[in-house]
Amino acid sequence: MTSKDDAAARAKACAEAMWAEDRASRALGMEVVRVAPGEAVLMMTVRPEMTNGHHICHGGFIFTLADSTFAFACNSHGPNTVAQHCAVTFLRPVREGERLTAHAIERSRQGRGGIYDITVRDENNAAVAEFRGHSRTIAGSWLTPTATPQE
Amino acid sequence: MTSKDDAAARAKACAEAMWAEDRASRALGMEVVRVAPGEAVLMMTVRPEMTNGHHICHGGFIFTLADSTFAFACNSHGPNTVAQHCAVTFLRPVREGERLTAHAIERSRQGRGGIYDITVRDENNAAVAEFRGHSRTIAGSWLTPTATPQE
Amino acid sequence: MTSKDDAAARAKACAEAMWAEDRASRALGMEVVRVAPGEAVLMMTVRPEMTNGHHICHGGFIFTLADSTFAFACNSHGPNTVAQHCAVTFLRPVREGERLTAHAIERSRQGRGGIYDITVRDENNAAVAEFRGHSRTIAGSWLTPTATPQE
Amino acid sequence: MTSKDDAAARAKACAEAMWAEDRASRALGMEVVRVAPGEAVLMMTVRPEMTNGHHICHGGFIFTLADSTFAFACNSHGPNTVAQHCAVTFLRPVREGERLTAHAIERSRQGRGGIYDITVRDENNAAVAEFRGHSRTIAGSWLTPTATPQE
Repeated sequence: MTSKDDAAARAKACAEAMWAEDRASRALGMEVVRVAPGEAVLMMTVRPEMTNGHHICHGGFIFTLADSTFAFACNSHGPNTVAQHCAVTFLRPVREGERLTAHAIERSRQGRGGIYDITVRDENNAAVAEFRGHSRTIAGSWLTPTATPQE
Repeated sequence: MTSKDDAAARAKACAEAMWAEDRASRALGMEVVRVAPGEAVLMMTVRPEMTNGHHICHGGFIFTLADSTFAFACNSHGPNTVAQHCAVTFLRPVREGERLTAHAIERSRQGRGGIYDITVRDENNAAVAEFRGHSRTIAGSWLTPTATPQE
Repeated sequence: MTSKDDAAARAKACAEAMWAEDRASRALGMEVVRVAPGEAVLMMTVRPEMTNGHHICHGGFIFTLADSTFAFACNSHGPNTVAQHCAVTFLRPVREGERLTAHAIERSRQGRGGIYDITVRDENNAAVAEFRGHSRTIAGSWLTPTATPQE
Repeated sequence: MTSKDDAAARAKACAEAMWAEDRASRALGMEVVRVAPGEAVLMMTVRPEMTNGHHICHGGFIFTLADSTFAFACNSHGPNTVAQHCAVTFLRPVREGERLTAHAIERSRQGRGGIYDITVRDENNAAVAEFRGHSRTIAGSWLTPTATPQE
């Protein structure tokens, strides 16, 4: 098994361990489509109770989808990693019923800090939000001995 | 009635009109504690289904509370106003059951653009997040004739 | 001449018109290495008078290099375009004498708004700063009749 | 001497030690108007060679003034502290010859991290830029024995 395979297996194991505990992302109906080292893709459909006074999706839920995607990407290396600072730009309104896809990629990682770029797109593949997240590694790891994938 | 009273009545009318339509903020159990011109205070209790894989409140819900508070503050002048760019710094983890208070104040407003600072605090009055939101006024107003407060 | 050639010629003409007037970038010793539609590469050497109290390059000059590169990229389409909001993360200290390269790419452009990502690298190709800029198109254009390249 | 006097003397000593080494801020003609614990006020006049292709002050110099002011504020407690992430919003154009004043205040400080808000104003007291800086304390201190103010 190559080092690249190891990293991919580790990312998958971290995602499974996180997902099992991530009540918030599951309660919002998110789906983890893909995880890889430093990368993640999640989807979520905008429910009626996610709309705001402007009759469009509340920006908080678009942020939350991006933030979860960011979390899966920055935790894909093993160590527990948390969001420290995030910025989001809302590019266009999102209607109820729309199915959103968020894609996170790692832009930078050194020491305990990382930077991830997440683009959220609608069903027409139009970007609805651009998110940049700064992560920080803390104590602990998703990869306890029993959580390591057996092969 | 003074101009200051007018502005306060307008802020209250806008908030009532928004709240009636804001399914998201109501579904999350938020409470509007105070609205004034360029200012708002909202509260929310962290529910079990708002926690993430680290067993703390998902940052997305802290953001969403801040974002709703921002919305009530930046829409307090009448014209429909939306979030364009937001940045949040997470200062400390928040546990399930914690009751959070977000306070928005207006830092800048000129032309169609505004900047609002929102601090989210826990029950011990410790800041858990600092949020800065940039708003943009769009077409339309919360203050249609029938929505104007009766005097 | 193809439409792609037109865009490239326009980017070059805009850059020449801007550069002729950009006293700041010239006074700091910047060099425009490349311009293309939505893209720019600039270089600058860190002078002794650009260092701060920590004996490293003042972050303001790293920002300024990134900001100029952002300006050349977002003004490459013709209309006058200005920076509205910028965020920068400093990744590692930069010493006096270092030659920095900033590369801007366009992430998003719709209506009057644009988002550009600029990475600043040192001579070892290590990223020293990540910058994200939000632009806004204003009145006027770099491409007056006399400024259009003759072919 | 009270603890409050101590903090004020420490802020003054840090500022003097920094200023002596800060070639960049001095070369740009900045003036330190006031330093206090967690706070600083600096001024700078916009020189002809600070203007850009739009014939207004290059945003990089407005950022640099804010960033220096941020540095004096976040280094006022003693430990060496550096900028990690900064965001700036440009509110209005600044002409050549304008004398700018930047005021930094401390919004948050815990552990090694701090958040500072800096407003840059023109001679009419109109805000031209809003800056938020995130700092991080590193090894070392401005307060070596010989740098301590004599009393």
